[in-house]
Amino acid sequence: MSGRQGLAADIGGTNTRLALVENGRVLEETIARYRNRDFGTPEEAIDAYLAGAGHPACRSAVIAIAAPINGKAIRMTNHPWTFDATCIGKVLGGADVTFLNDFEALAYSLDRVAPERLKSVYGSAQAVSIGATRLVVGAGTGFNAAALFQNSGGLHVGTGECGHATLAVETETELQLWKYLARNRGRASIERALSGRGLREIYEWHCLEKGLAPDTLSPAEIAALANSGADQTCEAAARQWVTFLGRVIGDLALVFLSLGGIVLTGGVTRSLARFLSEPEFLNAFCAKGRQQQLVSGIPVHLLDDDFAALSGCAARM
Amino acid sequence: MSGRQGLAADIGGTNTRLALVENGRVLEETIARYRNRDFGTPEEAIDAYLAGAGHPACRSAVIAIAAPINGKAIRMTNHPWTFDATCIGKVLGGADVTFLNDFEALAYSLDRVAPERLKSVYGSAQAVSIGATRLVVGAGTGFNAAALFQNSGGLHVGTGECGHATLAVETETELQLWKYLARNRGRASIERALSGRGLREIYEWHCLEKGLAPDTLSPAEIAALANSGADQTCEAAARQWVTFLGRVIGDLALVFLSLGGIVLTGGVTRSLARFLSEPEFLNAFCAKGRQQQLVSGIPVHLLDDDFAALSGCAARM
Repeated sequence: MSGRQGLAADIGGTNTRLALVENGRVLEETIARYRNRDFGTPEEAIDAYLAGAGHPACRSAVIAIAAPINGKAIRMTNHPWTFDATCIGKVLGGADVTFLNDFEALAYSLDRVAPERLKSVYGSAQAVSIGATRLVVGAGTGFNAAALFQNSGGLHVGTGECGHATLAVETETELQLWKYLARNRGRASIERALSGRGLREIYEWHCLEKGLAPDTLSPAEIAALANSGADQTCEAAARQWVTFLGRVIGDLALVFLSLGGIVLTGGVTRSLARFLSEPEFLNAFCAKGRQQQLVSGIPVHLLDDDFAALSGCAARM
Repeated sequence: MSGRQGLAADIGGTNTRLALVENGRVLEETIARYRNRDFGTPEEAIDAYLAGAGHPACRSAVIAIAAPINGKAIRMTNHPWTFDATCIGKVLGGADVTFLNDFEALAYSLDRVAPERLKSVYGSAQAVSIGATRLVVGAGTGFNAAALFQNSGGLHVGTGECGHATLAVETETELQLWKYLARNRGRASIERALSGRGLREIYEWHCLEKGLAPDTLSPAEIAALANSGADQTCEAAARQWVTFLGRVIGDLALVFLSLGGIVLTGGVTRSLARFLSEPEFLNAFCAKGRQQQLVSGIPVHLLDDDFAALSGCAARM
């Protein structure tokens, strides 16, 4: 066991991923994934992991969390867990604890992604270019994005809570769906559509529009039925979902001017990968008026690596 | 005349502002503003300015342009001028020429703004706090924003072309207006509403909705009639305009997590300053669902300095 060892953790709204880090690199064989619901607190999950790994001595920990990072005490948006650097440090035997936003960690991982993990969705089949701003965007339990800027001062990540920005609609039909997503909530954010729960609610709305009672399907089941073509309503929901995704990532590409490319991630995005080559997605992505040419030149890739944020944590250790 | 002298220029869609810079500071007495339409090319405008200033020897020039900065040849979005560093360098007797996006320059100016130039619109009456990300947003001929990030590596500005992202609507009435703004264009971007032309078109739409023929009013005339309360349709247009502004800056505050504050700028924003204390603006700004508390804590100021971008150019010289 090395004194240089550290802990990387990526805590999402559903799962926690953990790994040991040595010399700034994730030790692949130590990667583990836990379901949050099996633990009462993040300290319990970390404690269980360390016990399974033979109680390694960790001098530092970098923990990526699906939450705005603002001070030492962090509260997740999509999960009841809270985080305190002192409490987590105690579980780790006094290790220094650093919190990152989970998308900040994903952005820092972009330079470390193995090329075979990036599948071309649109544009150049090359990996995203070096130098220009790159954007990582993901839909899973929630939705967020982060930009990786490169300038003479080095790397800088810009991220926030863009999943909570307003979902933009363009037709009466979309506005009716927006109102369904906004019911009892006052408004519909991007995340109300572009998340697992969002896919489920878009499916429900399509059922209700057809006068059908929605089946009790999980987002994964809706995606599977859409992919196989076995259920037209699931397929319609998937096509609407990728329409919103295309529009939103095109808008974010303009906001951040991410000419270096967009990397898509997140469990729901991956589950609907088939629909990313459909016209609904690409048309919505490129339909940016006078900036259509600018946006059309931006390559889009899908990141096939559920543990990428751990590499980003290691990069910041 | 000092060998350290340089030229700062801020070239918008309507006006060009110029000043000489010495030791990294704008020389206030050298500031001038020209109307773009009085010149065929940016080189002609710069040449006229230098002639008026007695042909100072400039070793460098930093030129802020309302355009995406991507390579050495720049094309404006809202004006036919194009920019080439070599051509402008020749007019300047061989000076080094650097291009910045105009909002990048505004963001770099935030640390140099005189406190009396920042008027509180919402939240803390203090100047925006140091350390946290700050956002500058402006509506004039076009619309854009830039975030000023501060970390251990120094300052970094993140900017793009967010005025071209999709304008988000929330009601049937707003969708009808969106369609009016989108006519013959396929879609309505943020800038289609939040610009001088946007104010004009929002006014037109309100007239048409009432069965009235719109008067041929300029954006400044619409703002004046709205401010005086002399014309109900102009006032309705102004209230709709600040509703969109509040919604959009709340969304951008989430995207960039600009907890350090938002600084509003731009001629149209300033012309409608009275409506920034109206409930339409503040309600739209804060209405962010589960993130309402986060956004409500962000102070908003109005920058009363039409030449601020020149200070940002000087900061980068």
